[in-house]
Amino acid sequence: MALKDVDVFFKPRGVAIVGAARESFKPGHVILRNFLENMINGVFSGELYAVNPNADRVLGLKCYRSVKNIDGVVDLSVIAIPAKLVPGALEECGEKNVEGAIIISSGFKEVGNSELEEEVKRISRRYGIRIIGPNCLGVYDAYTGVDTIFLQQTRTIGGSPVLATPRPKPGPIAIITQSGAIGAAILDYMSGVEMGVSKFISYGNKVDVDEVDLIDYLGNDEKTRVIALYIESIDRGTEFIDTAGKVSLKKPIVAMKAGKSEGGARAAASHTGALAGTYRIYEAAFKQSGVVLVQTLEELMDCAKALAYQPPAPEGNITIVTDGGGAGIMAVDTLESLGVRVNTLPEDLLERFEEMKRKNIIPVFAAIKNPIDLTGIATVEMYTESLKILIQSSWVNCILIIALHHIPTLEGDFPDRLIEICRESTKPIIACDIGEAEMSKRVRSRLEKAGIPAYQTPERAAVAAWSLIEYGRHIRKLMVETIMKSIKPTQKS
Amino acid sequence: MALKDVDVFFKPRGVAIVGAARESFKPGHVILRNFLENMINGVFSGELYAVNPNADRVLGLKCYRSVKNIDGVVDLSVIAIPAKLVPGALEECGEKNVEGAIIISSGFKEVGNSELEEEVKRISRRYGIRIIGPNCLGVYDAYTGVDTIFLQQTRTIGGSPVLATPRPKPGPIAIITQSGAIGAAILDYMSGVEMGVSKFISYGNKVDVDEVDLIDYLGNDEKTRVIALYIESIDRGTEFIDTAGKVSLKKPIVAMKAGKSEGGARAAASHTGALAGTYRIYEAAFKQSGVVLVQTLEELMDCAKALAYQPPAPEGNITIVTDGGGAGIMAVDTLESLGVRVNTLPEDLLERFEEMKRKNIIPVFAAIKNPIDLTGIATVEMYTESLKILIQSSWVNCILIIALHHIPTLEGDFPDRLIEICRESTKPIIACDIGEAEMSKRVRSRLEKAGIPAYQTPERAAVAAWSLIEYGRHIRKLMVETIMKSIKPTQKS
Repeated sequence: MALKDVDVFFKPRGVAIVGAARESFKPGHVILRNFLENMINGVFSGELYAVNPNADRVLGLKCYRSVKNIDGVVDLSVIAIPAKLVPGALEECGEKNVEGAIIISSGFKEVGNSELEEEVKRISRRYGIRIIGPNCLGVYDAYTGVDTIFLQQTRTIGGSPVLATPRPKPGPIAIITQSGAIGAAILDYMSGVEMGVSKFISYGNKVDVDEVDLIDYLGNDEKTRVIALYIESIDRGTEFIDTAGKVSLKKPIVAMKAGKSEGGARAAASHTGALAGTYRIYEAAFKQSGVVLVQTLEELMDCAKALAYQPPAPEGNITIVTDGGGAGIMAVDTLESLGVRVNTLPEDLLERFEEMKRKNIIPVFAAIKNPIDLTGIATVEMYTESLKILIQSSWVNCILIIALHHIPTLEGDFPDRLIEICRESTKPIIACDIGEAEMSKRVRSRLEKAGIPAYQTPERAAVAAWSLIEYGRHIRKLMVETIMKSIKPTQKS
Repeated sequence: MALKDVDVFFKPRGVAIVGAARESFKPGHVILRNFLENMINGVFSGELYAVNPNADRVLGLKCYRSVKNIDGVVDLSVIAIPAKLVPGALEECGEKNVEGAIIISSGFKEVGNSELEEEVKRISRRYGIRIIGPNCLGVYDAYTGVDTIFLQQTRTIGGSPVLATPRPKPGPIAIITQSGAIGAAILDYMSGVEMGVSKFISYGNKVDVDEVDLIDYLGNDEKTRVIALYIESIDRGTEFIDTAGKVSLKKPIVAMKAGKSEGGARAAASHTGALAGTYRIYEAAFKQSGVVLVQTLEELMDCAKALAYQPPAPEGNITIVTDGGGAGIMAVDTLESLGVRVNTLPEDLLERFEEMKRKNIIPVFAAIKNPIDLTGIATVEMYTESLKILIQSSWVNCILIIALHHIPTLEGDFPDRLIEICRESTKPIIACDIGEAEMSKRVRSRLEKAGIPAYQTPERAAVAAWSLIEYGRHIRKLMVETIMKSIKPTQKS
């Protein structure tokens, strides 16, 4: 039953907003408005009902006293009312045969109200209602228009509208987050840098639906190419390893676990109430299940982008092409600190580059051992000729292009020329240009529109490249294990 | 002699551009234009001369056949001609009593031409001319208008002007970089994020002026509040420790050393030709001289900003105030990974916060042990009341404010209210708001304009706060050592 039901959170036929308030700042009001706007824009195609016993109409919509009074089908309820009223409302949802409820309300276990939370759990079990929350932002589905995030997209400051909590455009990245605040921050970040989201789930206290259910569901979601996970604690360890392990073979999961340090674990315990456990256990579990584990929020976003747009590396040989020696060194330092050796190119490749030197295709004083440093007189032809060789080579598994645009010999259209040559590659490719002024942003944006993830520093690009190598390692290991398991019984019989 | 002479690079009375080319893309042309524009804008106030034996006028300026033909005083020459012609030109500079020469030209040791470089060194010694370069970008002084960066600020792409290598506005951060490419990238970054620069020096092959001379000089530069250093190798180790140690007592030095890993060191060796030495030696040297050592380019910029605008922490007790539990945990994790323990608040402070709970000033379920988590119903009053207590407390040495703007209870003007209360503090304060959309950028920008460095993620903010604690530790140690040294002889006598 579990697997099938989660679907209702993303593709409901009828949605009831329980607590559809008149006051524009209240969660129930914002959520109702989200759905209405998405309905008008043709993104949300279900039926929508407002539940509020104290109002006739909200935002032009007729108000029902209870979910039970609605004639049409309601398969999803979004509950945004004071905590103590939640059990009653949930009971009515059960009687109406609602399949899923997103409980936005806070005031449960996170403030010490464990008993109230247990009551919610009992009611959900009794009626078989799946629950997301309580104490969460709930769901944002960029494709179906489900949006239970109670934070207004735009706020009015000094009389002017300011984009405060924008929703990202549709895209390939799914977000699962235990923290609502981090969730809102991630949406804000993704909007600003034009990263696209498939499904976003902030599940709060996880009285029912947790990361295991969601990973399982997203594993089969066509719109999702990568799952990014922010967690503070995992309760169902064995199921997590099992499910994540299966999903990792289909699509990458990248995770960040907060509460790594002693002080961090103590803070996590007082935040979610859950005992975080020692970080080493999490590290082992992630490794076993093929999850790419990152250290910071920035890395979570950077690696999700890389994994969404580039294939995993079949082996660990990465080659760096650069026009700045220093930037190349930075990338090497980062890769080696993450356990990826940047090996010297093999003899046959070195000979190909020596030949290019002799033919004056690349500078005679270019460094070619890896990184390949085309130096400050690099032209786009030097890049494309070098890339041709690397793309053809079976030794090269992953390519990091550092093209700092500042040098005069690199013409303005160089990103297009790089894109052209990279189209011929099946190898993973990551790019970097440093700077925050016009041209640099333009270079990165152009590359990204062509599916080449581009980063602001060599170190961030290196971490992104590492994630493709790390994921490649993971799936090779998982595949071997899967084959081993499938062989065993035959051998025994 | 050494110390006094370096001044000429930043405050020349007469500058000759040797190799003032007619072609707009050539280094000598771009440099001449830089000076001319800065002259028109009233930033550069020295005399300017163009040297080019093959032209009558360039950019409207009369051309001299040689530096020797110039009647007026020339104390600085900028040399941008083919490498093989450099010794001759330098010789003429010597005869003209030029005090400093910036040799932009490449084609020396970095391409194997060590002999030519030695010749340059001999000429400079013979005439006592100080040299920056060769193979460098040279100098950008945002206050005096010296700008020898041969990369055009604006490039024309598809018929439209695009800001490609902008120069940052004047400000308190000095940049010393061994790599020109990284230097250009840093200028681009600083411009884009509105960080101000005092003096920028890319010194390339350092045949004469090196990081030791520059740190010494910048230590006495009034416009410089922090020195940020990118290096691949240090040749004069003892002098570096000595000079950096003295300067660290006056102002912070933050450094990044590329070539940390085995592969990175190999790449560094083929980049600058210098043997990089093992990283541990550098670590020890930096520690001994009070230099704050960071790991990435992003950290270099982030910490430079923190150190430029906030005082060092007198001790290591940092307190975090947040409205997002997860974000607080991330900051703790980062701080503890860097060796800063985030301690539980002492009894008296805990009691003050308990009292605030009893008075309903902060939520009863707020976490108060450190981080202080005001939760998703935080108001600006909760922040200001909490900050008042922390600012007054002698236990608290450094404050990290995480104020994620997304929560509805945090009003639009909250940055102004935070700024107001922070003005009363002499403790170092760092801030964080996550997001890349309008409101988030606005929050950070507002805080920064008031001198509170603000960061995009809790981890980056934590690294910045760490740098203030680390610098505080360093200067305490250096001070003790200095006092010990000064006491010794007295005790002996």
